[in-house]
Amino acid sequence: MQQSPSSPQSHSVSASAFDSAAQLSNLQQTYTVIPRVRPETPLLDGIATPSDLNDFTTAQLITLADELRLFLLYSAGQSGGHFGANLGVVELTIALHYLLDAPKDQIVWDVGHQAYAHKVLTGRREQIGTIRSKDGLTAFPERAESAYDTFGVGHSSTSISAGLGMSLALRYQGLTQTVACIIGDGAMTGGMAFEAMNDAVQQDADLLVILNDNDMSISCSIGGFSRHLAMLWESGYQVDISDAGEPILCRRPDMQTFDRRKRHKEMRDVPQLEDNLFKAIGFTYFGPFDGHDIPELLRVLSIAKQLKGPVLIHIYTTKGKGFAPAELDPVGYHAISKLPVETENDAQSKATEASDITAASTVTTKPALKYSQVFGQFLCDKAVTDDKLLAITPAMEEGSGMIDFARRFPERFFDVAIAEQHAVTLAAGMATQGVKPIVAIYSTFLQRGYDQLIHDVALQDLDVMFAIDRAGLVGEDGATHAGVFDLAFLRCVPNMLIAAPKDENECYHLLNTCYEYQGCTAVRYPRGTGTGAVITQPAQTYNIGEAVVESILGNDTAPKKLALLAFGTTVATAQQAAQNLISEDASADCQVQVVNMRWVKPLDSALLESLLAQRVTHIATLEEHVIMGGAGSAVNEYLLNESPAFKRHHPIICNIGIPDRFIAHGSPAEQLADCGLDIDGVVKQLKQLLS
Amino acid sequence: MQQSPSSPQSHSVSASAFDSAAQLSNLQQTYTVIPRVRPETPLLDGIATPSDLNDFTTAQLITLADELRLFLLYSAGQSGGHFGANLGVVELTIALHYLLDAPKDQIVWDVGHQAYAHKVLTGRREQIGTIRSKDGLTAFPERAESAYDTFGVGHSSTSISAGLGMSLALRYQGLTQTVACIIGDGAMTGGMAFEAMNDAVQQDADLLVILNDNDMSISCSIGGFSRHLAMLWESGYQVDISDAGEPILCRRPDMQTFDRRKRHKEMRDVPQLEDNLFKAIGFTYFGPFDGHDIPELLRVLSIAKQLKGPVLIHIYTTKGKGFAPAELDPVGYHAISKLPVETENDAQSKATEASDITAASTVTTKPALKYSQVFGQFLCDKAVTDDKLLAITPAMEEGSGMIDFARRFPERFFDVAIAEQHAVTLAAGMATQGVKPIVAIYSTFLQRGYDQLIHDVALQDLDVMFAIDRAGLVGEDGATHAGVFDLAFLRCVPNMLIAAPKDENECYHLLNTCYEYQGCTAVRYPRGTGTGAVITQPAQTYNIGEAVVESILGNDTAPKKLALLAFGTTVATAQQAAQNLISEDASADCQVQVVNMRWVKPLDSALLESLLAQRVTHIATLEEHVIMGGAGSAVNEYLLNESPAFKRHHPIICNIGIPDRFIAHGSPAEQLADCGLDIDGVVKQLKQLLS
Repeated sequence: MQQSPSSPQSHSVSASAFDSAAQLSNLQQTYTVIPRVRPETPLLDGIATPSDLNDFTTAQLITLADELRLFLLYSAGQSGGHFGANLGVVELTIALHYLLDAPKDQIVWDVGHQAYAHKVLTGRREQIGTIRSKDGLTAFPERAESAYDTFGVGHSSTSISAGLGMSLALRYQGLTQTVACIIGDGAMTGGMAFEAMNDAVQQDADLLVILNDNDMSISCSIGGFSRHLAMLWESGYQVDISDAGEPILCRRPDMQTFDRRKRHKEMRDVPQLEDNLFKAIGFTYFGPFDGHDIPELLRVLSIAKQLKGPVLIHIYTTKGKGFAPAELDPVGYHAISKLPVETENDAQSKATEASDITAASTVTTKPALKYSQVFGQFLCDKAVTDDKLLAITPAMEEGSGMIDFARRFPERFFDVAIAEQHAVTLAAGMATQGVKPIVAIYSTFLQRGYDQLIHDVALQDLDVMFAIDRAGLVGEDGATHAGVFDLAFLRCVPNMLIAAPKDENECYHLLNTCYEYQGCTAVRYPRGTGTGAVITQPAQTYNIGEAVVESILGNDTAPKKLALLAFGTTVATAQQAAQNLISEDASADCQVQVVNMRWVKPLDSALLESLLAQRVTHIATLEEHVIMGGAGSAVNEYLLNESPAFKRHHPIICNIGIPDRFIAHGSPAEQLADCGLDIDGVVKQLKQLLS
Repeated sequence: MQQSPSSPQSHSVSASAFDSAAQLSNLQQTYTVIPRVRPETPLLDGIATPSDLNDFTTAQLITLADELRLFLLYSAGQSGGHFGANLGVVELTIALHYLLDAPKDQIVWDVGHQAYAHKVLTGRREQIGTIRSKDGLTAFPERAESAYDTFGVGHSSTSISAGLGMSLALRYQGLTQTVACIIGDGAMTGGMAFEAMNDAVQQDADLLVILNDNDMSISCSIGGFSRHLAMLWESGYQVDISDAGEPILCRRPDMQTFDRRKRHKEMRDVPQLEDNLFKAIGFTYFGPFDGHDIPELLRVLSIAKQLKGPVLIHIYTTKGKGFAPAELDPVGYHAISKLPVETENDAQSKATEASDITAASTVTTKPALKYSQVFGQFLCDKAVTDDKLLAITPAMEEGSGMIDFARRFPERFFDVAIAEQHAVTLAAGMATQGVKPIVAIYSTFLQRGYDQLIHDVALQDLDVMFAIDRAGLVGEDGATHAGVFDLAFLRCVPNMLIAAPKDENECYHLLNTCYEYQGCTAVRYPRGTGTGAVITQPAQTYNIGEAVVESILGNDTAPKKLALLAFGTTVATAQQAAQNLISEDASADCQVQVVNMRWVKPLDSALLESLLAQRVTHIATLEEHVIMGGAGSAVNEYLLNESPAFKRHHPIICNIGIPDRFIAHGSPAEQLADCGLDIDGVVKQLKQLLS
């Protein structure tokens, strides 16, 4: 790494141009309430594009940070959404947009939970209230939304790979823009970040990585890497950056303290300089620095951006910074719901997880259990009676409903950090030793552990259960988080059993059934709540692959006989659609059987044969999953290839599911309607089939 | 980390029990020829299980290493197979089996290329000649094969996760067996190894990781991690282990030297102690040690296995150790073919890549191009005329046919090490900057980058091409390396185009067609050679989604009309099967159209409609891919859901492909026959369809 002799980029400034932190730090504000009335933000209002920051003084940038923070508080109250991470990077975002010349320079946000401030500063201030709404701004950076959003994101740990790709492509073309990746300490535990660092050094790429260390991904950051960061802090040393870009080892200046040590039970009491992982891998490392100190950020980053080779700047920030309740409870304030309109009280907003939002398509009279809570209850109930049960999560303890389990059975609970690949193979290793591991994972994140599921679990037919949460459309989080490919990518894998419960109660018993099965199984259930079905005790063991006829509507002598084969939570939709169809059908020339298929693999071939024997004239499959390769496709394969009756007597078939496009964010109801998977949409498609 | 006060495991010995290296090292042999006659191996012959090693003296263990090495040379000459890595771990394997009490203690091999010596010592000596043959031993550890094979493997970087799972499950059950993972420096670049190390520290698990550093995965190890290992070596220091298990920093003793430094262009000239990545992440680190020095290995490992917490022992070995030609050319000797029977010459075997073995199902009069060579030629040809082309491989430069390209266009060639996730997102990042990246990857390894393909490439509709090699069954490498799920997991992803060429020439032009398309594409082709079709120039651009009727056989007035829709290299099989069917069919009551579908997505719906308009009575799909969710399933979906003609006139359909089970290793021809995908098998299934 050398200092570049000639990179006079815009906003490039010498360190001495900035006022010192001591002079200015007392300007920072801390707020205690979320404003209901739009606050006055005169400086912020003048910013149409980041270039409007050019003439700001450092003092104005600090004031701007206050305004931006207050505006984000106000907006979050109006629209809900991610919260803590955004408050934590206000100063960093301002510093980056001040120093870099975006969108020519490339700013790459990891995960993207923290890009709201970036969106506000890049021409989307007045739309920020539409975030996560249908046709509104997305919750994450998205290339289609803005030229400033260099890389769409939602899953973790991608920024260094993407940024390195940009840097290498620019270098190949003889271009010299700066590429800056901002990655959190939690995202850094994902193995692909390590793969990318390894390669950045190999390529000797010009790449500025800013490690935003807030000791907190969605759950607490954990593992050797987090401990390492803590030790870098605890060493009392800092690798400062000289005006020439050289590392200067010095005692750490007085900064806001973080009580990280207590997190790490086995902290070595070595106060000296620790082995540095980033330096070991070959990055030039500077830090740690206070990420809320704008003058310090400007000083460090203005030099660092001119350096050659891979450089990592390690900063510390506080999640929820500047909003007192969130600083005290950063997990609770990871995301918040919008403030209720009817409440006059302008005081502290209640922290709620974003995923609390109830699917609008289901209405119940009392608060229903979320599916994740059903899973949590199953875990606890089963753990009491079966001491072979162990449970693994890749950093989704809260989201997967495992908090109670982790508290009650800490020795059986394994949060492996953001590490989906490892989570799956860890389970496989456990299963070789006579215990029964359960991997709790979101459908969209299982995509990260796909090879491990095939190669380490299914191929060896190991006794592992996957509890797949957030299957189907996920509402406001949008396409990045949709779990709509799992049936296609799982059912092709030999040895897999795949169950899809119709409601909370069936979910509970299918979890139990798959747990009791010796082999590789998956239970797939959606985000949020279902029909509100009450869980019955004791836990049942269903017959593997057995479907259930839920209802038969209409006249047995009707000329058209429709079998509506519904998978998972579409059973409720199917029931209602069938009723609507029958009641609308004045001529009553149709009979409808609604089948809860319950299993995607194996299929209930006996039931399918029985339907054929009853001379059904039409078969429709229904699933909240892409049509291509999904559960309906499994029905097609069975009927065409294996059913003797089908060849003699061929009912007309159609597969209803998600079409072959990515579904944009919106409420769950809006998304379903968009796909024709709401009740009206299904009725329409059934009519088409029958006509 | 503390020394365990009470772990008196069998074979546990004090360091002083071993003779010194100086006394014994001169016993080691180096061989120059592969013996054709089974060598005399009296010590080895007496070993039925590893416990037979118990009474060996150190001198006998060293002699055993020589015998074992010679026996492996002989066996490799008889059966072919992986070579260099196995010769490199002879001493380590002996030391581990001497010190540990397998299978009670768990030995976990990463990748598994190097488990032959382990197989020989664990009761499979006389079967080792059957390795990679149908019904013979597998090339990798496999749980079903032996209790000593603790974890099946074939893909890289899984051992620490699996071993950690074992360790945690054992601890939970109050058991104290040792778990030892052996991982190469190349495998260590895979991100999941890092994820697992992070978690092992978090769990404070008792886990012994042996880093077998031979600076060589299949290609050269590259990247910051490899540089780091080199620097640990170049520092001149060693972290030795005391009798009490404490680290002792000392000058490195004189060891065999490795010229690693020249690999790393930007080696810092700092001879002092480097930052240590393993210590940074929280492992207790010892090393580097000479991995061919049995007394040293016994001394170090006998102490290390008694330590608590995660411990990493860093050893250096030489690939091909003890066989002079392989030491000189470790890449060429990664694997070898069996010695030809007709050659009398007993001299040095020619090094050949294992994947050279020609698919037995295809016969050509002259040596045909391998598909990987076709890809290599396309890359070079296209790069000459299009300077936007960049190419990425995750450590498969040779296997993917990229050696010429890398030599001719080094600035456009990116070997990212074993890092599939990163490879895909790196390409996505590049594509945002106006270049056209091509990711060359084996089908089975694309499973590792699946989420990145969805989330980073397809969702953003970025202009990236995937050249998917080793699609379909792969012969002797067996189920771990089969590429039989890609169509299912890819075709469900929106925005993807998927092409499957019928032969080498079509492969070339489909690569060109997909390259010219703006968006996310995949060309899928098999391992080895095809029909031998000569590549025509200039490169063509086919119409996207257009199929080709290859032939129409039989009488136009026949009552049965079969459309045989073949995907990819099954077209040749389909042609021959159709001819056999017609010629065998004495009554001539059948006409067969063979269609080269060429595209899996989009399908040629116009052609399908035309077939329906011609009143085909039967449709068979044919693919070298699992039936579930595959290309045939795509045909089903189209016909059932979208074809107006199909509802009026429904031909009988069947999908021919790989059944829903993992296919064991064997020759490609044996595997195809096993699945009914050889010509006879297809004819049989077609007859069944028509009957």
